[in-house]
Amino acid sequence: MYGTMIYGPRDIRFEDRPEPTIVQPTDAIIRLSATCICGSDLWPYRGVAPVSQPTPMGHEYCGIVQEVGREVRNIKPGQFVVGSFATSDNTCVICRHGYQSSCVQREFMSGAQAPLLRVPLAEGTLAPTRDVPPKELIPSLLATSDVLGTGWFAADAANVKPGSMAVVVGDGAVGLLGVLSARQMGAERIIAMSRHPSRQNLAREFGATDIVSERGDEGIARIKDLTSGIGADSVLECVGTQESMMQAIRCARPGGFVSYVGVPHGVALDGPALFYTHVHLHGGPAPVRRYLPELIDLVLNEKINPGKVFDLTLPLDQVAEGYRAMDERRAIKTLLRT
Amino acid sequence: MYGTMIYGPRDIRFEDRPEPTIVQPTDAIIRLSATCICGSDLWPYRGVAPVSQPTPMGHEYCGIVQEVGREVRNIKPGQFVVGSFATSDNTCVICRHGYQSSCVQREFMSGAQAPLLRVPLAEGTLAPTRDVPPKELIPSLLATSDVLGTGWFAADAANVKPGSMAVVVGDGAVGLLGVLSARQMGAERIIAMSRHPSRQNLAREFGATDIVSERGDEGIARIKDLTSGIGADSVLECVGTQESMMQAIRCARPGGFVSYVGVPHGVALDGPALFYTHVHLHGGPAPVRRYLPELIDLVLNEKINPGKVFDLTLPLDQVAEGYRAMDERRAIKTLLRT
Repeated sequence: MYGTMIYGPRDIRFEDRPEPTIVQPTDAIIRLSATCICGSDLWPYRGVAPVSQPTPMGHEYCGIVQEVGREVRNIKPGQFVVGSFATSDNTCVICRHGYQSSCVQREFMSGAQAPLLRVPLAEGTLAPTRDVPPKELIPSLLATSDVLGTGWFAADAANVKPGSMAVVVGDGAVGLLGVLSARQMGAERIIAMSRHPSRQNLAREFGATDIVSERGDEGIARIKDLTSGIGADSVLECVGTQESMMQAIRCARPGGFVSYVGVPHGVALDGPALFYTHVHLHGGPAPVRRYLPELIDLVLNEKINPGKVFDLTLPLDQVAEGYRAMDERRAIKTLLRT
Repeated sequence: MYGTMIYGPRDIRFEDRPEPTIVQPTDAIIRLSATCICGSDLWPYRGVAPVSQPTPMGHEYCGIVQEVGREVRNIKPGQFVVGSFATSDNTCVICRHGYQSSCVQREFMSGAQAPLLRVPLAEGTLAPTRDVPPKELIPSLLATSDVLGTGWFAADAANVKPGSMAVVVGDGAVGLLGVLSARQMGAERIIAMSRHPSRQNLAREFGATDIVSERGDEGIARIKDLTSGIGADSVLECVGTQESMMQAIRCARPGGFVSYVGVPHGVALDGPALFYTHVHLHGGPAPVRRYLPELIDLVLNEKINPGKVFDLTLPLDQVAEGYRAMDERRAIKTLLRT
């Protein structure tokens, strides 16, 4: 088969790769219904995260089970499944606390920008649907695998409740789905920080009540204006830079909640400064597996349409163009047809 | 009157000072029943926090109201009151969220190591008792003013619940009262990190089920051993150094809660490292005013005896010796008789 590899900054190759096979008895092999490119894939693409050797790319996936290892009982060939970017046994004490992305057996997935994928710990990692879903729901189901699950965690970790005032920092796919998630959780006011008209529009469609296009001190002053002068109850940090983290923390009211869900790059938090903000801070790799059954139901019942974040669709063999379009911000998120 | 001033590192002077008077119509003047020295007073004493000019010391207080400003209605001369180290109007939107120590009108108190004290925003800052309490309860009532309120916030911010496994980092008075607080909140297991026998004993008396005397990697390994290999649900950081913060964060399980209640000195948190720990982090200056009525009741009903942290009592004019004793760790906390 052909699959996607990164060789170095801006060097994405779609090349001949061995087909995945069952390695552990707990594995499954999935034929992907679709796959996509993640905002986090841009860190190595842009050279911010080092690429020490050619590496298979892609960690978002849904599709039909082809084959399972001999210890896999609850996941069966022919089933449609969605999986998380982090594998989990879903039985260890950390999983039982709802932090499957820190499972004692966790591996981070890679190699999903390909037609076939090996998924370790299949029973604990994959969420099956009862029936094979209609084709038009595939983009939204694919979104639950990471980008919606991560936006959902951002809203949950920022304690969004009915009536909350929420701010979303970052207008990438995760930020936009953070808006959708905050809306689903009943936030009364959702302020999206964005300066790109097309993203502002999607933010509004997903439930944003206000748009703030300013950044830094000016952006924070605008947020204070919109929140009785004190800052927001909930702030979702969906970028991962020092600037965005500090912006998020400074937009929250004392006692407010700040979540951060993108791997921080070059971020250091000053202890005394954080202390006097009085915020709650919670984040990390989103425990998507915790939310998958609920998110899949919301999609299947057509309550939400997170697949709208895909504003570019390409055949898988044009994956390199998909990266370019996202890097140049011509696309929010690229769906790849398998 | 004579009051306590700091002139520089290790330079505490008990000297002639003007008696406080009503400045704002919202002020009250209190005659202190007792006062004390705080662990945080050691930061300037040790030269870690700079002393730019001679500064009145002391921010923990309880006593009898002498006089009130013309806008003070609910606090009356003759009443016994306890106040927080941070003033608050107790009516602004931040106060209503329970973060009185970030009140829009907040001032940090000073000058309480003296017989008389001016308290701004008296109605919002002071909690009165119905009757003047018996003398033997004064030390415990004084403790509610900061050190117990701060330990209580540490336990609350670390989400201690019935059945929790809690770790307390720091065996100063706040840490020890963090143990007491965790016990009151129903923690099933409370591990105190301490290497001083007298403090270990008091920790046990306050409810610690286990003592860990190791620090650093060894200490963390011991905590993991005691918590099914994954770390604690709740960790109370009651020191404020880089070492203690990282020890606290690394003692928590993924998804666990870490509180920090001492002003951090020289602390910087690495974004990626924090991200992968998956902890909740919350802290800041303790909103003692939120807890005062409940804590005062617990003391008056003799459910708790936080005054036990005072293991040295001196007359106020020996305040300098009180600092020396705490600096040299000869005393956990010094009570000053007025």
